[in-house]
Amino acid sequence: MSTSDLCYLSISEAADLLQSGKLSPVDLINAHLDRIEATDGRLNSFITLLAEESLEAARNAERSINSGDYLGPLHGIPVGLKDLYYTKGVRTTIGSKILRDFVPDTDAAVTESFKNAGAIIIGKLQMHEFALGPTSINPHDGPAHNPWNVERVTGGSSGGSGSSVAAGQVMGALGSDTGGSVRIPAALCGIVGLKPTFGRVSRYGVYPLSWSLDTVGPMTRTVRDNALVLNTIAGHDSRDPWSVDTPVEDYTLGIENGVEGLRIGIPNEYFFDLIDAEVSRTFDQASHVLEGLGARVERVFIPILERSLAISGSIMMPEAAAVHIDHLRNRADDMGKDVRDRLETGALTPATDYIVAQQARRLFNRDLADVMTNFDLLLTPTVALGAPRIDQPSVTIEGSTLPTVAVLARLTRPFNICGFPTVTVPSGFTKDGMPIGLQIAGRVFDEATVLRAAYAYEQATDWHTRRPPL
Amino acid sequence: MSTSDLCYLSISEAADLLQSGKLSPVDLINAHLDRIEATDGRLNSFITLLAEESLEAARNAERSINSGDYLGPLHGIPVGLKDLYYTKGVRTTIGSKILRDFVPDTDAAVTESFKNAGAIIIGKLQMHEFALGPTSINPHDGPAHNPWNVERVTGGSSGGSGSSVAAGQVMGALGSDTGGSVRIPAALCGIVGLKPTFGRVSRYGVYPLSWSLDTVGPMTRTVRDNALVLNTIAGHDSRDPWSVDTPVEDYTLGIENGVEGLRIGIPNEYFFDLIDAEVSRTFDQASHVLEGLGARVERVFIPILERSLAISGSIMMPEAAAVHIDHLRNRADDMGKDVRDRLETGALTPATDYIVAQQARRLFNRDLADVMTNFDLLLTPTVALGAPRIDQPSVTIEGSTLPTVAVLARLTRPFNICGFPTVTVPSGFTKDGMPIGLQIAGRVFDEATVLRAAYAYEQATDWHTRRPPL
Repeated sequence: MSTSDLCYLSISEAADLLQSGKLSPVDLINAHLDRIEATDGRLNSFITLLAEESLEAARNAERSINSGDYLGPLHGIPVGLKDLYYTKGVRTTIGSKILRDFVPDTDAAVTESFKNAGAIIIGKLQMHEFALGPTSINPHDGPAHNPWNVERVTGGSSGGSGSSVAAGQVMGALGSDTGGSVRIPAALCGIVGLKPTFGRVSRYGVYPLSWSLDTVGPMTRTVRDNALVLNTIAGHDSRDPWSVDTPVEDYTLGIENGVEGLRIGIPNEYFFDLIDAEVSRTFDQASHVLEGLGARVERVFIPILERSLAISGSIMMPEAAAVHIDHLRNRADDMGKDVRDRLETGALTPATDYIVAQQARRLFNRDLADVMTNFDLLLTPTVALGAPRIDQPSVTIEGSTLPTVAVLARLTRPFNICGFPTVTVPSGFTKDGMPIGLQIAGRVFDEATVLRAAYAYEQATDWHTRRPPL
Repeated sequence: MSTSDLCYLSISEAADLLQSGKLSPVDLINAHLDRIEATDGRLNSFITLLAEESLEAARNAERSINSGDYLGPLHGIPVGLKDLYYTKGVRTTIGSKILRDFVPDTDAAVTESFKNAGAIIIGKLQMHEFALGPTSINPHDGPAHNPWNVERVTGGSSGGSGSSVAAGQVMGALGSDTGGSVRIPAALCGIVGLKPTFGRVSRYGVYPLSWSLDTVGPMTRTVRDNALVLNTIAGHDSRDPWSVDTPVEDYTLGIENGVEGLRIGIPNEYFFDLIDAEVSRTFDQASHVLEGLGARVERVFIPILERSLAISGSIMMPEAAAVHIDHLRNRADDMGKDVRDRLETGALTPATDYIVAQQARRLFNRDLADVMTNFDLLLTPTVALGAPRIDQPSVTIEGSTLPTVAVLARLTRPFNICGFPTVTVPSGFTKDGMPIGLQIAGRVFDEATVLRAAYAYEQATDWHTRRPPL
């Protein structure tokens, strides 16, 4: 098998080969290190590459597997972590200059989970500074580049996670998602990204952006792989006060059960007001695919969706400012201008605006919960357009010219407000070859149905088999 | 039985007489209307007296009871509502000039509960304007006066509820408690006041002060009566998004089971830093009474209690300002100066301060919850001194001179932060004849143990049998 073919195995394919001894973890890591060396000059996915450490871990994995201590489907699998997950003894920069030399003395809960599962952390991945932006144009590390066209953005804030998975540099990665930061780069890089239910995955040891919105999410090339990673990281953790103590499922079980009879709603409001015509056509085709598979797809009216940006912004910005209040006071010049502007906006928000937004959020969540008494899933596009160019501060959609950042994060935010589990799955390409994502949201803690529908769609199409031209 | 004796029956005594037909609801209401007429010129407990309506309700109750339709222990019992509970068709002023003419078109959930239980709402009671202060010196209605000495404050914000129950004008009342507004007037007026667990009683139709701190609480002359009222109003209500769906008990069951073996903690920090010597001595005696009854009383260290005022103030003031933002903009001159100042402070609070306070609250609540793994109850004084004079803006405690309002609300606030059920029960008098309260807090949703301990203490003493000199 060529290096590139090895690197484009799915996790579950590689796991079968590793478990049976047909593939050496050391060979698998070496193939990925080669792939990174061959591609990262163009992509800039990595902030910190752990070449020696991951080879050492691969040798350990090989010994363990050979002696019969196989830990499960992530054992020996090369993965990456967005550079806001604490890694004991390994610097964790949060994509910033200010925390360039921060070396945590503990692992994040999810870092621990990966290590306990035998996954091999091959490096720390590029991100938008402090996770506070949707482009991953990082002023301190340079921009992350989209594997489908290196002049394009990856999306953000988990841009390095998106590009590294899409480019075969890692088999899976963790992003974090506060307003879309897993789903935006997953959609723009043509991979699968899941934002689990708020509270499903521990945030212990995750550098915060916005405590009432932050989630941890898997980014992979296939839906089944996504379920495997979720299996590894889901569960209650008393160290995260917002972690919810509710049972964890094996998310691969039943994933092949199809969408026959599932009730899928397409919101009438908000999602289609400002959307590229190609994305819109692709979305219609995807909804027909799901109908063809037996789902009952219909329009649903959710007027409160129009409040999404007002609610999400009034919560996220002041919560982020509360995290960075000392950085704003003492190190403002060391931040990128866009991030500094957002944090200053947050710091100047009156408490009353924040409180009103949190109360509006309760109404929003009540209305969305009401909708889900009639629907199993909601279906929307993930991002309103294909990845724009890195040098493109504004985009034009159907005649309206808008800031790129405003357009990129528009369609993902509603599901951070209500906390629903939400996945993006590849659903086609623009004429100029950039990936398009399909967004599927479900009821709280019903990741299983969300992944089941994504899997059915994925298997009925072949978008996930395409590889970027690297 | 004299009018005054009738008015000083407990609810449970009156209920026995009403159920057996030995007492007419009409006679009972007339006795209370007489008592109100005889005393309210001095007390000013009522904002709105519902004389005709309550007589009509009494006649209906008499007919129902005579025909065998006895609804339970509140049937025919005269009660009062703090004037922030919505009463359909009856003005609800919130103690303000701004809402002087507000007539709700629905009942609050607790108003409904009272009506469904056959209780007779005899009037709407005096309060601190917008519930935002601990004195009930109301600039629009005049001050509420303490029945034990009409030159003294009742405490607040539920001052009219405290004075009316203490003076035999009603058999029970509802206050609301955001920082102590049930417990402060209950303590200063010498009655029993319970702040149930946050989420235990519906706040539907309660004019808000601070959405993350507000609770609804019964004020009565005996602990058993308090349990009877709680039985009537407790329970889940989907119309209040913060109402918790957890089972309701019959809070009178087991109330006589005593405190033998209960572990009672006396916090080492905060509660005894600024306290009148008489209150301190009274507290020591009360703790010895409980020890004598078989409780295991010991000191407990809870350092985070020192953060109580910072957390509570940074949450309450901006939440109140969010409620009154339009009043601040358009009607600020129609508010009392103290309330306006507090709301303006809240409106000027940055969101980041509020967010930091909410996060500090989580640590506070975690520490308090940890304490309650070793203790059934916490025991403290309710208020640091006996009721001060109405004309006394500052008080001197052990040589320190402080604003009256700051001293009154100091010891009750911690339990609003963590949401614990907390009761105050009469525990003695100052040398100049003003009542002193003993505060007992318990685990969340364990109102039963809190009331059981209060009952044991009450029955071992005779403070609750004293009547004010009216």
